[in-house]
Amino acid sequence: MQQSPTAKIIIIGNEILSGKTQDENTQFIAQELCKLGIKLTEVRVIADIEIEIIKAIRELKTQCTYLFTTGGIGPTHDDITSESIAKALNRDYLINEEAEDILRRYYYYKDKNNEFSEANLKMAYMPEGAELIPNKETTAPGFKIENIYVLAGVPFIMQSMFKELEEKLIGGKAIISHSLDVYIGESRIAKDLAQIQKDHPNIELGSYPFIRSGKWGTTIVVTSTDQEESQIVLNKIHNFIDRV
Amino acid sequence: MQQSPTAKIIIIGNEILSGKTQDENTQFIAQELCKLGIKLTEVRVIADIEIEIIKAIRELKTQCTYLFTTGGIGPTHDDITSESIAKALNRDYLINEEAEDILRRYYYYKDKNNEFSEANLKMAYMPEGAELIPNKETTAPGFKIENIYVLAGVPFIMQSMFKELEEKLIGGKAIISHSLDVYIGESRIAKDLAQIQKDHPNIELGSYPFIRSGKWGTTIVVTSTDQEESQIVLNKIHNFIDRV
Repeated sequence: MQQSPTAKIIIIGNEILSGKTQDENTQFIAQELCKLGIKLTEVRVIADIEIEIIKAIRELKTQCTYLFTTGGIGPTHDDITSESIAKALNRDYLINEEAEDILRRYYYYKDKNNEFSEANLKMAYMPEGAELIPNKETTAPGFKIENIYVLAGVPFIMQSMFKELEEKLIGGKAIISHSLDVYIGESRIAKDLAQIQKDHPNIELGSYPFIRSGKWGTTIVVTSTDQEESQIVLNKIHNFIDRV
Repeated sequence: MQQSPTAKIIIIGNEILSGKTQDENTQFIAQELCKLGIKLTEVRVIADIEIEIIKAIRELKTQCTYLFTTGGIGPTHDDITSESIAKALNRDYLINEEAEDILRRYYYYKDKNNEFSEANLKMAYMPEGAELIPNKETTAPGFKIENIYVLAGVPFIMQSMFKELEEKLIGGKAIISHSLDVYIGESRIAKDLAQIQKDHPNIELGSYPFIRSGKWGTTIVVTSTDQEESQIVLNKIHNFIDRV
């Protein structure tokens, strides 16, 4: 059996760690990967610190099919993702001519008298061998290097980049989840759920408590790439729920 | 100089990795830690898989003052956090009598004829030596073991637990951030910001692009425990912004 493709995400962002910004990139990428049949196995939020980025890249790149990073590819001093990734991969950090060309044309078009600054040029520096990931929202591209996809941190730009690269990702069977909300506490269905999970080890069976209008309930989630087995499990759940 | 206290979070949750649920716990804990002067240095979202939990716990517990986990402490088969942590710490996994007592009283009070089930009792199992972290929303407690704080995954329950334990955390100087939004693109202020960062290495100076009503701008964030130096930096920023 072919191994299903997997993914990990590194969110590079002091603004998430300080609580200033709510991360939205994880959920977007997670949902897109799910549709593509790529299993997201881990997300790390780390600080904008070179040694932390290098460590995370080196450790995670060998543990998954696709490694995504978000954040830190802009023109300012705290944008250190590209250089850190170059170091992590022992690659030169140099100007990508295609990126420079795109950036120069954009800034020239915007204002013919505007000097193309060092900060503008910074966004063209990438690890040697990078392939650009364009986006429809801004000029500055993300890039792919080895199995690493380096994306912007701003959600709408990141999303635009992801849409561009999506067709290049080789997925597996779509991972489909079915949810069932019941107004029964988790404790009362725990035993039956555990038995079903035991009988169907290839199905991922999750149970999440909720409270709505003061009433406790449980969301039961059945996740699998095998829709036939999912349906059997769902029928079993319906059957025992009726008896509780 | 005394080292500032640091923290890391492990979010244990297939529901986050599948994109089904938006994680809200990171931002809440991050903001609370900030107020307490505890620096959050990393967040990991991992799957409900024993070996992953053990690996993350062992690796991260020695790298921070406080390690928080959220999720996986309920009564169902997929709640494996407590047992995995016991294994990670080479501690026995057994009934905490205080927790059992609380749970029994609650279920007896709720329904005198209700049998106290195995699933109910599961929530009293903890690593040997655990100290309870009660909460005002439910009966099931979280717990502290060594420097690890094991909290619920459901946000309002997690928050209630966090409020209970908060006063036991020894913080540092409050970490205060000042934000400044300017309608100037990042590239145009990159050089000045870099110079200020260089002159004030103890200040964390962040720069985040935004777009509002079609207009690009930059949020500049000055973060420090030293309010005097923050003010000097803010003044410098105001001065150069006026010239751009």
